[in-house]
Amino acid sequence: MEEESAKLHLSVDCTVFGFDGNRLQVLLIRRIGEFGGLEFHDMKLPGDLVRGVEELDDTARRVLAELTGLRNIPLVQFHAFGSADRTRNPKDVHWVEYAHQAHVKRIVTIAYFALVKIGKSIIHDMEGTEAVWIPVDELPSLAFDHDKIIAVALDYLRTFASMDPSILYDLLPRKFTVTQLRNLYEVVFGSKLDPANFYKKMTQMPYLTALDEYEQGVSHRAARFYRFDKNKYNKSRL
Amino acid sequence: MEEESAKLHLSVDCTVFGFDGNRLQVLLIRRIGEFGGLEFHDMKLPGDLVRGVEELDDTARRVLAELTGLRNIPLVQFHAFGSADRTRNPKDVHWVEYAHQAHVKRIVTIAYFALVKIGKSIIHDMEGTEAVWIPVDELPSLAFDHDKIIAVALDYLRTFASMDPSILYDLLPRKFTVTQLRNLYEVVFGSKLDPANFYKKMTQMPYLTALDEYEQGVSHRAARFYRFDKNKYNKSRL
Repeated sequence: MEEESAKLHLSVDCTVFGFDGNRLQVLLIRRIGEFGGLEFHDMKLPGDLVRGVEELDDTARRVLAELTGLRNIPLVQFHAFGSADRTRNPKDVHWVEYAHQAHVKRIVTIAYFALVKIGKSIIHDMEGTEAVWIPVDELPSLAFDHDKIIAVALDYLRTFASMDPSILYDLLPRKFTVTQLRNLYEVVFGSKLDPANFYKKMTQMPYLTALDEYEQGVSHRAARFYRFDKNKYNKSRL
Repeated sequence: MEEESAKLHLSVDCTVFGFDGNRLQVLLIRRIGEFGGLEFHDMKLPGDLVRGVEELDDTARRVLAELTGLRNIPLVQFHAFGSADRTRNPKDVHWVEYAHQAHVKRIVTIAYFALVKIGKSIIHDMEGTEAVWIPVDELPSLAFDHDKIIAVALDYLRTFASMDPSILYDLLPRKFTVTQLRNLYEVVFGSKLDPANFYKKMTQMPYLTALDEYEQGVSHRAARFYRFDKNKYNKSRL
């Protein structure tokens, strides 16, 4: 038992989603590694090993700040990924062992979830790492089981948004058009919605406030901007 | 880093709730330990260290079967508890080190959640351990942070039951009275409900089927039994 457990490591990974008005995106870090004398390039979720006596929530906040510059983002722990199979790729093991000067066998990672407005400023180049927004329907080759973590995070987003749609407004700019909102519903729930029906339904919601502002510089008819009223939303749910 | 991580261990704990018609109960294991030459008695959640390459979900199923005899119970992972503070009590550390012949510093536990009908047969005496139902409002002294794990599991139960009340019927016998159902709502959500209003509301629900069976051998007026119809419930939610 001691032999098996001695090489266990604990990490945290953050799955941060954003929305550009058309597509759902996830925040990834470019990884440059070396294996068998060859350099390789791929991507990974922002994450790191948990330090000494660090609390898991603190690791999640630290990792996100260090790798992306994002601070004061509500991060929710959503799932632990602990399969021994996570370290099946020797490239990943070598990369962690080199970075941490430790012999690694099994890494349990605690995954966190966040929704941010994509306009929020990311520091793209921190300590030699680069953070980039990548559409979730165009993911490149990812480290470890990070593709699986993102898939589980998307399920989690769908489940939570279906029970509490107000979380979707965390992904939209403060002022948004009904088309942007419909696009978001479509990408989160994976089905096309009738524009006229959706417009009618949403503009009847007491918690969507129509502003006296319209899109500018567009070739089509300028759409009106709306704002989400969290207080009215909470009242409507009682 | 290697020094810190080398003593990390990974465990799984199961929080299994039952309902006796009046109170919410949690399934606990009696622990007999020794510390400083003195024997001590307390209780803990059913749990164990994860073995070799075992998957977390498999550990959860194994632990529950080995310690309580419960099999084929849907177990849902709900939270990872990884604070270094979990092993602040030397009694707990000594107990794990003795049982597993390993030097233990930090134990990350992945907590699972299950709802069972309390009539389901528990094997109370497995391999020298004893499994017992204990009311959640009368918890004794518990190992590690198991009191905190139970509190988080209760929050999780409340949140999920408020979004999907059908899970509450997993806690009731197949045939139940409206009073039992009201008691369950009251203990889960922590507030008193008006009996007449509740009766009227629930008996109007299309998914509660009135049976031609009544309580027997009761001193008060015999109450009618109802059954929960999952198919009708799912249709009512579309």
